[in-house]
Amino acid sequence: MKKLFPLVTTDIALFTIIDDSLRVLLVKRANTPEPGKWALPGGVLDPASDSDLDDTAQRVLSGKTGVDVPFLDQVATFSGATRDPRGWSVSVLYYALLPRDQVPAIAGKKTEAIEWRDAFAPGSRLAFDHADLIRAALATLRDKVERAALPLHLLPDRFTLTELQQTCELILGRALDKSVFRRRLKDEPRIVQLEGEFLYGSQRPAQLYGAAEGFRF
Amino acid sequence: MKKLFPLVTTDIALFTIIDDSLRVLLVKRANTPEPGKWALPGGVLDPASDSDLDDTAQRVLSGKTGVDVPFLDQVATFSGATRDPRGWSVSVLYYALLPRDQVPAIAGKKTEAIEWRDAFAPGSRLAFDHADLIRAALATLRDKVERAALPLHLLPDRFTLTELQQTCELILGRALDKSVFRRRLKDEPRIVQLEGEFLYGSQRPAQLYGAAEGFRF
Repeated sequence: MKKLFPLVTTDIALFTIIDDSLRVLLVKRANTPEPGKWALPGGVLDPASDSDLDDTAQRVLSGKTGVDVPFLDQVATFSGATRDPRGWSVSVLYYALLPRDQVPAIAGKKTEAIEWRDAFAPGSRLAFDHADLIRAALATLRDKVERAALPLHLLPDRFTLTELQQTCELILGRALDKSVFRRRLKDEPRIVQLEGEFLYGSQRPAQLYGAAEGFRF
Repeated sequence: MKKLFPLVTTDIALFTIIDDSLRVLLVKRANTPEPGKWALPGGVLDPASDSDLDDTAQRVLSGKTGVDVPFLDQVATFSGATRDPRGWSVSVLYYALLPRDQVPAIAGKKTEAIEWRDAFAPGSRLAFDHADLIRAALATLRDKVERAALPLHLLPDRFTLTELQQTCELILGRALDKSVFRRRLKDEPRIVQLEGEFLYGSQRPAQLYGAAEGFRF
C-alpha cells in the first residue's frame, strides 16, 4: 500500500576532536531497515512532544548519546521516495559540536555501539544516504570556519590560542599562518582573555581564553 | 484529535527585478487557513508524484505561476506545532530566480491574485510565518552575491556588464565600485562575451554577455 504521509526524521552529524583529528559520531543500527550498518544518530519526529524540529534533534541526540550539546544547527533537508526502504522520507540534517573534553560523557545509551569516525573518511557502506549527509555537514562546518567563524564549542571551557588555531586547521585540513591568525584575533569579541590564567607546560606559560558570554557556534 | 503526521509543504521565494527593485512573488490565499492573506506560493508534498522535495517545489511553483524556473535551491526548513493552524507542519523553503524578461509570462493560473512585492519590504500581516521565510530567503540570496556568486538567472539571456552590476547592487542594497567590479569579472568563467553583439543606445555601444554553458545560479 502506498503511504500517504512521509516519514519525517532528523539526523545529526555530531563533530568533535579526538587525537588531533576531526571526528563524527556514528551508531550501529540495531533494527531494520539496514540492521548492522553504521549511521548518523537520528530519529523520527514526535508531534506530541516536539515543539519544532530543533527540539526533535535535541531530543534524539540526547537520547542516543546522553549529552546535551551546546550548539546544534540545520545543514539541509534530504528527501525522496527511495532513500529509505520504509517509504517516502524527509530527513532534516543538523550538525552539532561537542567540546573535546566531553567526549567521555557519551555513554552509548540503549546499549548501541558507537564509533567516532574520521569525519573526512567515515567509512564505506554506511546506512541510507548518510555518506552524503556527512559530506554536507562537513562542508557547512568548513564553510563557517573559512568565513572566520570560531568553532569554540569544540574546545574546552578554557583554551589557548594554539588550541584554537589547531582546531581550525583540523577542520580546514590545512595549516594557517600563525601571525595572520593571531592578528585576526586581536579585538575579537567572541573570545575573552582569562585574567591571570595560564596553561603551564614544557614551554613558557600560555594565556588561557574562554568564549564570550552569549557566544553561538 | 491530535494528528500523528505532520503536514509537509514547500514554499518558494521567487525573486525577480522589476523597475530597478528586487521583488518577491506573493499570492493571495483563496482558501482557509488565513484566507485573503498574502503568502509565498507553496503547496503540500505529494508522495505519489514527487520523487523528492525539489520536485515538489518545481511542481508547486509551476502550478501557481505557469513558468518553469531555471534556478531553484533550498534555503532552510521551518517547522513547528503552532506555525500552521492545521497542525504540526514542516515547510522546506526554496528560493528561485526569474529572469527579468520573463516576468510577463507569470500568468496567475487558478485565477489567484499575485503581486510582486519589494523584497526588502514585502508588507505586514503576511500569512503564517512567511515574513520570516522571506527574510531568510533574502539573506541567502544576498549572502551568495556577497560571496561573489553571479545572479545571472535574474538577467535576460544577453546582458551588459552594467546590467549585471546593477542587479548585484539591487540585491546587496549598496553601490559597488565599477572598476573593482570590472576587474573581478576579468577571466570570469561563468560569463562569456557574445562576439560582435552590442547593445546600442544613447551611449556608446555596450558589449553583450551571456551565461557560460552549464552555469548554475
